Amino acid sequence: MRIQTLDIGGANTKKLLYEGGRTRSASYYFPLWKKKEEFPRFLRDISEEAYRTAVTMTAELCDVFPSKKSGVEFIVSVCEEVLDAPLYLTTDQRLLEKDEISDPSELAAANWQASRYLLEKRFGEGILVDVGSTTTDILPFGEGTHCYRSDFERLKNHQLLYTGLLRTPVNTIVSEVPVHGQMVPVSSEYFAITADVYNILWGVDYSCETPDGRGKTREESLNRIARLLCADKEEIEEELPGICAHVHRMQVEGIAEAVKRAAISSKRKTLYVGGIGRRLGIEAAQSLDLPYVDLGAELKDAWNLPCLGLAEMTLELDGGESHGL
Amino acid sequence: MRIQTLDIGGANTKKLLYEGGRTRSASYYFPLWKKKEEFPRFLRDISEEAYRTAVTMTAELCDVFPSKKSGVEFIVSVCEEVLDAPLYLTTDQRLLEKDEISDPSELAAANWQASRYLLEKRFGEGILVDVGSTTTDILPFGEGTHCYRSDFERLKNHQLLYTGLLRTPVNTIVSEVPVHGQMVPVSSEYFAITADVYNILWGVDYSCETPDGRGKTREESLNRIARLLCADKEEIEEELPGICAHVHRMQVEGIAEAVKRAAISSKRKTLYVGGIGRRLGIEAAQSLDLPYVDLGAELKDAWNLPCLGLAEMTLELDGGESHGL
Repeated sequence: MRIQTLDIGGANTKKLLYEGGRTRSASYYFPLWKKKEEFPRFLRDISEEAYRTAVTMTAELCDVFPSKKSGVEFIVSVCEEVLDAPLYLTTDQRLLEKDEISDPSELAAANWQASRYLLEKRFGEGILVDVGSTTTDILPFGEGTHCYRSDFERLKNHQLLYTGLLRTPVNTIVSEVPVHGQMVPVSSEYFAITADVYNILWGVDYSCETPDGRGKTREESLNRIARLLCADKEEIEEELPGICAHVHRMQVEGIAEAVKRAAISSKRKTLYVGGIGRRLGIEAAQSLDLPYVDLGAELKDAWNLPCLGLAEMTLELDGGESHGL
Repeated sequence: MRIQTLDIGGANTKKLLYEGGRTRSASYYFPLWKKKEEFPRFLRDISEEAYRTAVTMTAELCDVFPSKKSGVEFIVSVCEEVLDAPLYLTTDQRLLEKDEISDPSELAAANWQASRYLLEKRFGEGILVDVGSTTTDILPFGEGTHCYRSDFERLKNHQLLYTGLLRTPVNTIVSEVPVHGQMVPVSSEYFAITADVYNILWGVDYSCETPDGRGKTREESLNRIARLLCADKEEIEEELPGICAHVHRMQVEGIAEAVKRAAISSKRKTLYVGGIGRRLGIEAAQSLDLPYVDLGAELKDAWNLPCLGLAEMTLELDGGESHGL
């Protein structure tokens, strides 16, 4: 029995296929706010035959839609056209067919509920720290934890952080950076993103677009970071790694601060860290001296938790045995 | 004798014509990083016949150019093609013909030198606070003031601030905003800019593009600010003006802080406030309790100071009488 799950984000759509006790995951960069008209074809291209397909989404927030409700409606209509009777995840952790949806808002940004399902089933209780390309979910799970449902409520309660490994504009993390031992304010133009920072520091799978449309080499990332200081690379070349290290430190601090709040309010300590940016989550855990589990060592699909959780929910629904996904 | 001056910015190109003791100014929204290929035609369309044309630029910083030097070279080559033997302003306040340029970097972001020329001539000494659509110049002028020349040095020394009335992304000014009496973090997506904030608070001449490509009504700006909180307008409608008031306050504080530094280091007190965003500069002056002159009351072209200064420099060069521009 083949199960397909899709997590349709604004910038990336993630997919997971489950068959015969094995999974296969993929992520596709598809900036929906730029290419809405091509979305049906894109979805047709990436989707596969499956006994069951389940869908969750966050792309309804894209500003190509006048409202989140209209975003959900558009995405559902395309899914209905392209997929075979898909199920949709709601923010109260149900799976609905299209005709069962009474309010499209129930489907908006529900993907964390799939992660929560997975984590509770596997680990009982703890705090999920899922660092993605654009956002980070910080989600206490297990009996008695309180879930905030809408994106706004999750933002307000620090369970949704707009910070990620790739797409976060550097100037939304820092307003100044150290250069020659002095803090220097940065430009507010969209010149460089966190993908550039980690491309310079460690090398990274730069799977989104570059801000300037140029290439993804380390040299080109250095250029983009320099431009944040209105400089050509040559003017401040030796300072650029230190600037990146500072941005990295500030980003980890931001994650750590939210994790600390979650630990205090949920009275849970153990962090379960996943997502393509889980290195940042692990560093946050270490800075707080909290115990953590690197989900990358536990689960092949640790960067794709909502899809994995959604697959387990779907299997459960059909009475299948999901143990061992 | 007709003089034409051009201040070629990345997003806006400003023009001033001087003839018979009178001036006429205009600003054209032309995002050069998006439409580089159309720049020659654009420049041809907006330029007029003149005895002398003088040019200054900041558009070389656009990331459509691999370096500022190559940006200057491109802009100069187009000016040479379209304009009649233009003069170019340098960062040491000279006007050069093309053949006199030894290093293109001398021409990068020199427009503040034209403002400085104008202010010194008219007012002797003080501090210029020129709040534009994207950036703010804070420039002590008069005998003994120190000028930082490159954009990087000006940024480092708080004489160039990346904050403006229209194009500044809200999430580069604030990382959180008050909602229902509580500070709530904002999204890091490019959802709303300062033009939206002032469109909501006062109404503004929204002369740049909107982040979502939608319209420029107050309602549409409210939508964009709500989206920063991952919300539809209806979810937090009554909170939106308060959110805007907070962003406004923080932006004025940022300007005031830099003005204070400039006042201390230059030992000057009187502020001369110009630019399309001079209301923000005046509010900064008032918050610091510093004396200020509203250039809008003194000069018809107070929003276009570099072009006006450049016209005075050009007239001077030709031995003309510039008094009374």
